[in-house]
Amino acid sequence: MQDDVAAVRAANGAFYSAFEAGDLDAMADVWEHSDRIAVTHPGWPTLRGWPSVAGSWDAIFRNTPYIQFVLTGDDVVVAGDVAWVTLDENILQATGSPGGGAVDSEELSGARVAAVNVFVRAQDGWRMVLHHGSPVSAGAPDA
Amino acid sequence: MQDDVAAVRAANGAFYSAFEAGDLDAMADVWEHSDRIAVTHPGWPTLRGWPSVAGSWDAIFRNTPYIQFVLTGDDVVVAGDVAWVTLDENILQATGSPGGGAVDSEELSGARVAAVNVFVRAQDGWRMVLHHGSPVSAGAPDA
Repeated sequence: MQDDVAAVRAANGAFYSAFEAGDLDAMADVWEHSDRIAVTHPGWPTLRGWPSVAGSWDAIFRNTPYIQFVLTGDDVVVAGDVAWVTLDENILQATGSPGGGAVDSEELSGARVAAVNVFVRAQDGWRMVLHHGSPVSAGAPDA
Repeated sequence: MQDDVAAVRAANGAFYSAFEAGDLDAMADVWEHSDRIAVTHPGWPTLRGWPSVAGSWDAIFRNTPYIQFVLTGDDVVVAGDVAWVTLDENILQATGSPGGGAVDSEELSGARVAAVNVFVRAQDGWRMVLHHGSPVSAGAPDA
């Protein structure tokens, strides 16, 4: 069980590493490529199936020149061949400008997102099947 | 498998029935009472464990004199002893006023929430272990 928790934590970490790197190939390695997967980005409707999920990451990566996550309050639950992680994403990011160019620290903005990530056990590790992130209102208390 | 999907749909329906009725006892029957459960209401941080989850429902029920859900786009996935439902909650609600009183149709407001509900198989049926709902931005396209 402790091995499972560690493996799920590693898969969860790979997800955020791919996100920070804006690396679509690494993100593709994190996810199960199937019709049953789903992603809900903050403020977005739910998208289902690998083509839609991959398309959303491509769009986000193209419009996010810089993003950094500080993950807090993570909790891992393993139930047989399914696991889920709940955590807070404390985000520092730069949003894309049409002209591109270097990232200036003054362009950075912060956000707090509550997320759940669901993984399913595959033969060679855990694959993400669901990511749902939602904005936490400013001034909301800590849980 | 079709029996499982139907049973998960029934558990999911019981969740929204309890929510619409503002019935804490019925809501208690829907959930697993454990430390591993979590709820993320729209704009809220994630709350974990049955006491915190139950307390949030109590607070919501006290401040929601009327709420009606029209559920659309639901998708059920069963993976062994865990299942999850993704769906859109199209919400018509009245928010509480300090004086209470009858609900006037002019006080009603609408909202669209993208939700995921996770269930775990128990001896006597499926129990909710996670609910995460997040606001869909006005003007967001359908998935």
